[in-house]
Amino acid sequence: MLHAIGIDLGGTKTAVGIVSAAGRVLFSEEIPTRNRDGAAAILDATAAAVVEMSRYAANLGLTVDGVGIGSAGVIDPVQGSVTSATDAIHGWTGTRLTEELAARLGLPAPAVRATNDVHAHALGEAWTGAAAGTTSSLLVAFGTGVGGSFVLNGAPVPGHRFVGGHVGHFASPFAVYAGEPLPCVCGGHGHVEAIASGPAILDHFRRLSGEPAADARAVFALASAGNEAAAVAVRAGASAAGQAVGGLSNILDPEKVVISGGLASAGPMWWEPMETALRAELLPALTALPVQRAELGNAAAVVGAASLILKDNPRSGMMQK
Amino acid sequence: MLHAIGIDLGGTKTAVGIVSAAGRVLFSEEIPTRNRDGAAAILDATAAAVVEMSRYAANLGLTVDGVGIGSAGVIDPVQGSVTSATDAIHGWTGTRLTEELAARLGLPAPAVRATNDVHAHALGEAWTGAAAGTTSSLLVAFGTGVGGSFVLNGAPVPGHRFVGGHVGHFASPFAVYAGEPLPCVCGGHGHVEAIASGPAILDHFRRLSGEPAADARAVFALASAGNEAAAVAVRAGASAAGQAVGGLSNILDPEKVVISGGLASAGPMWWEPMETALRAELLPALTALPVQRAELGNAAAVVGAASLILKDNPRSGMMQK
Repeated sequence: MLHAIGIDLGGTKTAVGIVSAAGRVLFSEEIPTRNRDGAAAILDATAAAVVEMSRYAANLGLTVDGVGIGSAGVIDPVQGSVTSATDAIHGWTGTRLTEELAARLGLPAPAVRATNDVHAHALGEAWTGAAAGTTSSLLVAFGTGVGGSFVLNGAPVPGHRFVGGHVGHFASPFAVYAGEPLPCVCGGHGHVEAIASGPAILDHFRRLSGEPAADARAVFALASAGNEAAAVAVRAGASAAGQAVGGLSNILDPEKVVISGGLASAGPMWWEPMETALRAELLPALTALPVQRAELGNAAAVVGAASLILKDNPRSGMMQK
Repeated sequence: MLHAIGIDLGGTKTAVGIVSAAGRVLFSEEIPTRNRDGAAAILDATAAAVVEMSRYAANLGLTVDGVGIGSAGVIDPVQGSVTSATDAIHGWTGTRLTEELAARLGLPAPAVRATNDVHAHALGEAWTGAAAGTTSSLLVAFGTGVGGSFVLNGAPVPGHRFVGGHVGHFASPFAVYAGEPLPCVCGGHGHVEAIASGPAILDHFRRLSGEPAADARAVFALASAGNEAAAVAVRAGASAAGQAVGGLSNILDPEKVVISGGLASAGPMWWEPMETALRAELLPALTALPVQRAELGNAAAVVGAASLILKDNPRSGMMQK
């Protein structure tokens, strides 16, 4: 039976897990991403975790067939490199991810494959999670940021410059305050992410109320307790999120929509206005579109990264010696 | 040398042309679409035009290898049928397009293939037009309606319910008047099409000025002559169009964007604010995104429909007897 190691490398944490051919995480561990120490340090720490995980697998008699990595940043899945990344991971841009990791692991380069972490997340949900069994799915994650991935026939649509899936960066009628489009983290204005992300909901509450709050979670708590400004901020974010996903569904017509990220788990206060806004956007032909919450939680990207090795991979078998 | 007949079946006119293996239209003719007479009458007239065209081709010693049709409506390209259509073509919904046409032509069913007309249009531009040589392109047409198609590796992304490409139906911050989202032809509100189509520009001018105008063309003429309300209506439509395409580009990351339809030919008064708004939306990684006007004009859908037979078609050769 085939197994692979899946890695979810994010800005603060890196999860490493052994995934079975059926897409189940047998065991996993989490290490901090050494995001201030440069690419070499991150790769060293990641490789060490993979080696440890492989030894553990070997002791159980499992054969590990390769390593799949879902990484933050814009990832070139063909070259296996980091096209660009924000400073959340210092020195990450330009890293030859698969080559460097393979060298550290003593593996042939094709035994290591990479994609962007949101694409990995969507691949996991499309394989064994909420979108299992579909031929196409649109996953959109609402959390610290807004990101997404359109998975078509088992593979994410990466885009020509590997930028595909940046669903947070299109205009939202909700992303306006006092007649002006809100600034977005991308440098643009009036985007979905500028009103619908967790930090955007926090900012919107502060603007509306003139009061402080620790984080988006605190805004949800205030809204639950009857605070009107907090309720408005949550509703605006949720409505912008749903409207965006509904409009995108009209364009991409996925078999199923999967909503993920921290906000998707915030309960009916967010989910209900989100789904109402989403369904209000849909063309009549899409009335029956299934919209579901992601099922795999934090394991999704590890599973999806491992699927790069385990599913339809003509290069599999490279790690068997 | 292979040739195919390409058909562009629209709400008012049907174009039929002979297309070479290189994607050139050798000759073509146009007949009215019998849009009030029901599917059988339309198919009869279309088949008659195909027969005439085939005879002409035979007289020139050309072998016609099959028939491709791009039709208005939501088209199931696998079954070759009309999933749904507006009443612009009476009785068109449910028509078994390829089967019925093949029967009338005495051809095996696989020698006739179908897609939606906007997808055909985009396929034509991706084959021999503005997006020739690309591996992915996003075509958006702004005219009587707003429609689009994302062509990936030589094929349009049809969507699970064949609804993919309805790019006119997502929320636009511009599609608002007096604080209320404008009604859209789809039954929704506040969509791109409700402010950016030709009829929407006309409506917006009427709303702003309280004056009549014959059509969108007249609004452009008024704007050229210095009418302020007309200029505002044109600019709003163009900005909404560009903003929508820019946001979509962030999500799909196509190699090239192609803008088509009547408004794309309306000159710099429309193109300049459109392109400015489009580029203002783009993520930094997309700064160099090429944005071009469609090149094939009315021939695009005929060429694209014929490509269903002429390009990568394992079933080609069916019409050679």
